[in-house]
Formats: sequence, structure tokens, C-alpha cells
Amino acid sequence: MNLEEIQRIFSTAPFIQHVGMRLLDAGEGWCETEIEIGQQHEQQDGFIHAGVQATMADHSAGTAAATLIRPGQYVLTVEFKINLLRPAKGKQLRCRAEVLRPGKTLTVVESSLLTEKLVSKATVTIAVLDK
Amino acid sequence: MNLEEIQRIFSTAPFIQHVGMRLLDAGEGWCETEIEIGQQHEQQDGFIHAGVQATMADHSAGTAAATLIRPGQYVLTVEFKINLLRPAKGKQLRCRAEVLRPGKTLTVVESSLLTEKLVSKATVTIAVLDK
Amino acid sequence: MNLEEIQRIFSTAPFIQHVGMRLLDAGEGWCETEIEIGQQHEQQDGFIHAGVQATMADHSAGTAAATLIRPGQYVLTVEFKINLLRPAKGKQLRCRAEVLRPGKTLTVVESSLLTEKLVSKATVTIAVLDK
Amino acid sequence: MNLEEIQRIFSTAPFIQHVGMRLLDAGEGWCETEIEIGQQHEQQDGFIHAGVQATMADHSAGTAAATLIRPGQYVLTVEFKINLLRPAKGKQLRCRAEVLRPGKTLTVVESSLLTEKLVSKATVTIAVLDK
Repeated sequence: MNLEEIQRIFSTAPFIQHVGMRLLDAGEGWCETEIEIGQQHEQQDGFIHAGVQATMADHSAGTAAATLIRPGQYVLTVEFKINLLRPAKGKQLRCRAEVLRPGKTLTVVESSLLTEKLVSKATVTIAVLDK
Repeated sequence: MNLEEIQRIFSTAPFIQHVGMRLLDAGEGWCETEIEIGQQHEQQDGFIHAGVQATMADHSAGTAAATLIRPGQYVLTVEFKINLLRPAKGKQLRCRAEVLRPGKTLTVVESSLLTEKLVSKATVTIAVLDK
Repeated sequence: MNLEEIQRIFSTAPFIQHVGMRLLDAGEGWCETEIEIGQQHEQQDGFIHAGVQATMADHSAGTAAATLIRPGQYVLTVEFKINLLRPAKGKQLRCRAEVLRPGKTLTVVESSLLTEKLVSKATVTIAVLDK
Repeated sequence: MNLEEIQRIFSTAPFIQHVGMRLLDAGEGWCETEIEIGQQHEQQDGFIHAGVQATMADHSAGTAAATLIRPGQYVLTVEFKINLLRPAKGKQLRCRAEVLRPGKTLTVVESSLLTEKLVSKATVTIAVLDK
């Protein structure tokens, strides 16, 4: 597992610190992440903003893809789609990202986000590139 | 134009203030928004994080949809897809969101994000609901 | 289970007969379908055309959603997204569609398509409407 | 313009002949296509099936991308999303596909489908590959 790239993705991405997302665990082709929800994550109705969920789905997917790359490679999101399945409310937002299809140049990852229930699901296409 | 809902979407959404996004202008079926880019918006490579772009694309789309709703209604994102077309770098990130298809219960909006060039494009499905 | 609507979706949709898709089985919130692959399903490179896969993903998702609706209701696709994970080749193309999130007005369904391996995966948003 | 690949995409794709789609015109980064609608294109409600629309959106996007590739290259769809904006009915279904962002390895194309009005819009990610 390319731990160097995974650490870099988490410790040197300022927006991820700004949002307060942290890595819980990771293995070959997957990772789990968490955000402690505060008022700053809310939309106008008190629910967790879709942008918070999208950020988490995307960044966790990139991290899951990065567990499978070789040293000297890096990952970049090409596109993603997210379905917001229910209004999201809770103290913790968790995400599990799993690689659906690893590839030499493109990897597809699914991210599931949960509070108590599944609140959103995303499919993320990640490019694998050489530095 | 439902200015009350538009103001509410912008002034009472804490995550939008946390990200630093503001409304530049709006009309029937469209709006324009801006983020002054700082280090907190960056991913690990110094480019603007996909999560910032997704947040902007989604929230601007919701605002564009809200320009067309009646008093007593509100909007909620059902799903969206974003294509990240090039690495995004610049001092301002701007978004123009335009309603592609208004509807009684579902409205489809396109959001285009630019620094100097077009950096991403999203299609957002918005539910129109009664309070 | 609303068998009447399910039969109607399969026996009275001319394009589904034109493509040669048939229902294998269905239960509450899911269905399985199959296409016997012939030359007419191919794209220019001899693989199964993305349009065949999209048709199957969409129609199977609608059928899975229809297993959960009440008499007097019908289903209509709002949007879908499909990732083509590998070139698809084989004598049978099978699809399993499962409802991820049932809803009063919107239902989200995932469709997985397989020959010997998983060849594509789609997420489909379905509107539930009253006749 | 790579006319050889464009001809190949249209004259040697059996599913495209099965669906009855033809190329009307093409230029650098765009193409226009048409289907004469018959009963075989319908879903159970008499409207044009979403699978017909998806097939057209995808194949037209691939063709538009192919106008920009070099000899010895070919195109392959990675993923697409389509929003079905209104029930589609009419004697001709037309599509205009335009490259939003050309790339060395990935090209993003938008496809708009019309009968009398805009009935659907798709965003398609196309891989550019060497034979």
C-alpha cells in the first residue's frame, strides 16, 4: 500500500483540514473517514450540506484509489456523481470508500456516507497519473 | 423572483460562509457566485479542491432553482454530477448556474465554474418542495 | 408486489422487445434481467454497445422500482449515470437491479451488469408518479 | 478531421444500425445525428425509450470526440450521465454532440437531444486510446 501518497493526501490538503475530515483506517482498495459535525457544516435547514458530503465522498475515493498505486504515481478526480438519499443529520458523518474497478489509468470508486443511516452514495472516476 | 428564499440560502447556510462563497447576481433562472481563493481551498497539489468546486456547483444550482419557486416552497438537491475539466488555479473561482429545465417538482440546473478558463461543469437535479 | 405494472413494463415496451431483453426474476425491491447477445448488440469493435448496457441498466432499474409502488402508480426515469468498467463480451448479458433507497416520490436504484465479470454499474433516479 | 474513424463508428456498429441512427453532419469537435422514430423505439407509455436516448447521446458523443483524434487512435466511453428532461415524443429524434473539453487521454462531450423541444442532455467522458 502506497502509504506515502495516502499520508500526503490527508496531511497536506488544506481544504480537508478546513472541513475537519480525518482518516480512520485504510487497506488495499478501501478507506474509512470521519467528520465530527459542527454548525459550520450545515446548510440553511440545519442538515449537513451536500458540499460537505461531496467533499468527503471525493476525497475518500481518491484515498481508496491511492492505496493501489505505485510509488511515483498520484491520483486526480476526473468526475463524480452523488445521490443524496435522505436529509443528513448527526454528530459524526462517516464514509467508506471502496474501489469497484481498479485500472492502470482510470479507477472507479464507490463512496457510501452514513450518519445513523446511509445518507448518500457516490461513484467517483479517478485518473492514475505518473508524476 | 423569490428573493426571501435566495437570501435565506446565502445568509443562513453556515457551510457556505465557512467556504467563503458569496452571491454576485441573480435573475429568473440563473445566478452568479464567487469564492476568493485562499490556501484553505486547496488540495494537496495546490489546486482548488474538487470539494470546493462541488460545493459551489451545488449551492449555486440550488440558488438558481430557488429564483423560480413560489413563496412557501424550498429547494433540496437530489443528485449531481461534476466533471473536473482541468486543474483549477486562480485568485477567484466564479460560477454561473442556469436552469436547463424548470419543473413543478424537479428542476435541472447546469453550473459552469471558471477561473480564467472553464474548470468544471456540473448538472444538478433539484427537488422543489412545499414547506 | 405490483405485478401488473411489472408485466406492463416488460410486455408492452417495444424497444425492450427490439433489444431482446427479458425478465428472469423479481422480488420486493429488485429484479434480474437478461439479454442473449447477438451481433446486433455490438459496437464497431465487437464489444457490447454502451447503449445496450444503458438500456438494460435503466429498464431493470425501473422494474425494480416498480416492485415497490402501489396500484395506480407508475415509474419514470429522471436521470441515470453509468460507468463502463471493462469492454463487455459474452453470450449473455445479465443485470441485477436493487433499490438503494425507496421513496414516496423518488426512488434510487443501482444496476450491476455482468457477462463473466462486472462490466458496468449504474445509479438510476426514478420518479414515482400517480396515473 | 479523422473521417476514417468516424465512418467506422457509423458503418460498422451493428447496434447503431439496429436502432436506426444516422450521421447528419460533423465538424471539428461536433456532430449531429438523427433517428426516424418508429414504434420499436417506444417504451410502455408510447414515449421514446430512455435507452434509445442514451444510445444516441453516447454514440454521438463518441463520434464528436473522434473528430479530434489522430490516425491510429480510437475512442471508448468511460462513463456518462443523462437527464431526461421531458417525455419525448415525435417523428424525428435529433442529437447535437459538442466537445466541452478535448484532452490527450480523456475528452468530455455534451449531447443535447431534441424532438420539438430539448428532451434530454448528457455529459459523456470518452477515453482516447492508441490502437
